[in-house]
Amino acid sequence: MTDALLFRVDVPPTYRPHDAASLGPYLAGVPGVTNRLGGSPADWSIEEVGDGNLNLVFIVRGPADGLVVKQALPYVRLVGESWPLPLERTFFEHEALVEHARHAPGLGPAVYHYDGTLFLIVMELLEPHIVMRRGMIEGIRYPGFADTISHYLARTLFFTSDLALKAHEKKARAALFNRNVSLCNISEQLIFTEPYTLHQNNWWTSPELDGDAAAIRADVALKVAVSDLKYKFLTEAQALLHGDLHTGSVMVTAQDTRIIDPEFAFYGPMGFDVGAMLGNLLLNFFSQDGHARNGDDRADYKTWVLETTEAVWLNFNKAFCTLWHDARTGDAYPAALFETAEQAINSDALHGGYMRALFRDALGFAGAKMIRRILGLAHNIDFEQIPDKSLRATCERPALQFGRALVLGAGEFTDIAEVTEAARDLASRAEHA
Amino acid sequence: MTDALLFRVDVPPTYRPHDAASLGPYLAGVPGVTNRLGGSPADWSIEEVGDGNLNLVFIVRGPADGLVVKQALPYVRLVGESWPLPLERTFFEHEALVEHARHAPGLGPAVYHYDGTLFLIVMELLEPHIVMRRGMIEGIRYPGFADTISHYLARTLFFTSDLALKAHEKKARAALFNRNVSLCNISEQLIFTEPYTLHQNNWWTSPELDGDAAAIRADVALKVAVSDLKYKFLTEAQALLHGDLHTGSVMVTAQDTRIIDPEFAFYGPMGFDVGAMLGNLLLNFFSQDGHARNGDDRADYKTWVLETTEAVWLNFNKAFCTLWHDARTGDAYPAALFETAEQAINSDALHGGYMRALFRDALGFAGAKMIRRILGLAHNIDFEQIPDKSLRATCERPALQFGRALVLGAGEFTDIAEVTEAARDLASRAEHA
Repeated sequence: MTDALLFRVDVPPTYRPHDAASLGPYLAGVPGVTNRLGGSPADWSIEEVGDGNLNLVFIVRGPADGLVVKQALPYVRLVGESWPLPLERTFFEHEALVEHARHAPGLGPAVYHYDGTLFLIVMELLEPHIVMRRGMIEGIRYPGFADTISHYLARTLFFTSDLALKAHEKKARAALFNRNVSLCNISEQLIFTEPYTLHQNNWWTSPELDGDAAAIRADVALKVAVSDLKYKFLTEAQALLHGDLHTGSVMVTAQDTRIIDPEFAFYGPMGFDVGAMLGNLLLNFFSQDGHARNGDDRADYKTWVLETTEAVWLNFNKAFCTLWHDARTGDAYPAALFETAEQAINSDALHGGYMRALFRDALGFAGAKMIRRILGLAHNIDFEQIPDKSLRATCERPALQFGRALVLGAGEFTDIAEVTEAARDLASRAEHA
Repeated sequence: MTDALLFRVDVPPTYRPHDAASLGPYLAGVPGVTNRLGGSPADWSIEEVGDGNLNLVFIVRGPADGLVVKQALPYVRLVGESWPLPLERTFFEHEALVEHARHAPGLGPAVYHYDGTLFLIVMELLEPHIVMRRGMIEGIRYPGFADTISHYLARTLFFTSDLALKAHEKKARAALFNRNVSLCNISEQLIFTEPYTLHQNNWWTSPELDGDAAAIRADVALKVAVSDLKYKFLTEAQALLHGDLHTGSVMVTAQDTRIIDPEFAFYGPMGFDVGAMLGNLLLNFFSQDGHARNGDDRADYKTWVLETTEAVWLNFNKAFCTLWHDARTGDAYPAALFETAEQAINSDALHGGYMRALFRDALGFAGAKMIRRILGLAHNIDFEQIPDKSLRATCERPALQFGRALVLGAGEFTDIAEVTEAARDLASRAEHA
């Protein structure tokens, strides 16, 4: 990580990482926690379960209830102390959880406590939820997911944007999150730069995809297009993004959908969050042949994944447009300019261009997300859990091609059905090749 | 000014506005000033000359040299105490003067002293410079202007952008200037909103342009397009802009060009500064028939104005592209992605899209600037100094139409010569109508 050392990591003397032994006495001192868990610290079980890339995560269970404690480490857990990472990311995660909960209540974990000295959040234990990506690998359907995630996206993006806020309110929030530079730097490098170069962080299914990776590195038009997307990521402060909204940041049951882990939150282009979700659904689609079993060829499930991909965009688009008309109180596209009845008739003309630009951005970012998960540092278990390397590469190759098609052709798709049809065609051609 | 009271204006107890009597003793206490002016305060002449809209401006002359003192008032001078405006704008002006001088040395006034308590800047007296707009009304040519302003634009925009800076450096600067919200609010309201509504701040040559103003207010497509531009202004933090770069912010002699008054500085879309300059040159072009006299029909001067408009863009484009290739050290379009020899051949493919987008933005903003100067609060003396109202309206009408054409058709012009040709055609048709 070239730029890691640019970010001085201040570890205050009062910071210490918790372990299972130290956490119980600490939690006993946090107001409300003992009442919530029931019993006393001796009755609590504490387990460190962090399987993410960055942090310590503890599940604490008492006689009455459970909770989760997430604590930042001053380095990237996946890599180790050689890659320092500021503890302050927990501050931004807490800020984003609180702000997004204001706009989309009940869709994140409830926050019980934030400790700005230990960089630690005590929050709701989501049970019996599982990480959505794991469920999708098993072929489990989540009928309420598309509705919930599109509602979450529409409301968190709209209400933190210039469409809802006065410019000075928006700028104050943007200035605050402008300090979350180290997490943004991870996205800038890992998504938009490294996969397109020879870099020690990159890896892929080798030697099967060696040629594909080399072709990506040699594709100047693709690199210009992905740099255009990076420029948007660097410059377009449209809304407070989740910043890492893939299917691993979603916890689900058959009935419930929750969004977790917004530590990458910053003011960026709306299409980045929308595209992250679309791209990760499409990655799962392309991985399904690798999870087919006797008696379960995943054909129906693939259809469900593509229908869900369509529904996420369509429901988002509808919810966002409704907010546009009913809740536009910000400085952008001020309602005062379009208030007469006859002009309201032309309201589609008003938001049509905006939504087309957002759709184009979302598809571009979706494509960039797909490519980085196959060629960059952080891969998806959707593909990694396909043990047969050759089969895995057979799934990854069309996904990579589709990512490239989205980055290069984002502006050419006129609706989401064209996108899913193109994905289906590409997968089908790959299968019969 | 609807939003004026949103911005609390803190006037510290130590602040006092200077007058000609109090300024001398104050300056005598500023290190270096007495040496510069020569003599003692009794030998200095002090004159308040502020003819701008916002501030106190004093010219101080001593036996050896002169200087300028610019001090903020806690309200808009043009309007009075009913429109409060934070004193902190002087902080941002000073920050921008210093930063832009680092990238384009010698093109602003030299700064001798900044007083953060009195919100006052002591700076170089530009003599015998005059405000360029006044010279252009007189029909004076400035042969070095296009070179200098395009050099200034290219270097200040490039070196404060993600093309030159690491993301964390850029974001820290952007966060600082995000506090200059009250000045940005003036632009947001006066440029992008008020001229398109019935608003008490608006005025125009009436009744001659009443129908034109009404047509603008009824033009939904135009209002969407100008709102798209406002959205860029609100969200696209590309570079540290001057923020008010019209021909009234340029001081000239036949040989020298200087840029003053960057108090509207903020991180915004590059096209806003470029477009402000292009739009104000075009406004002057359309005003010239109103300044024609016996024996001076201004035909040649109009040609010079359009040639200068072309040269500003062409020289800017060339200088910016040179910097793109030679000085791209930032996180955007990282050189590491395009470093091999064969890929460098395609470097036009690399910056072509970027420059087209910047050209389109500049034309759009130019058009918005033209409209606001004819229908909004702040007008240009280019037109106001045409005493015959009917003649003035005859000049303003095609300027207004051209502004509309630029806002709506910004993406359709492929080069600057098409723009100047269209301006010439429109003026010619208006003349013969």
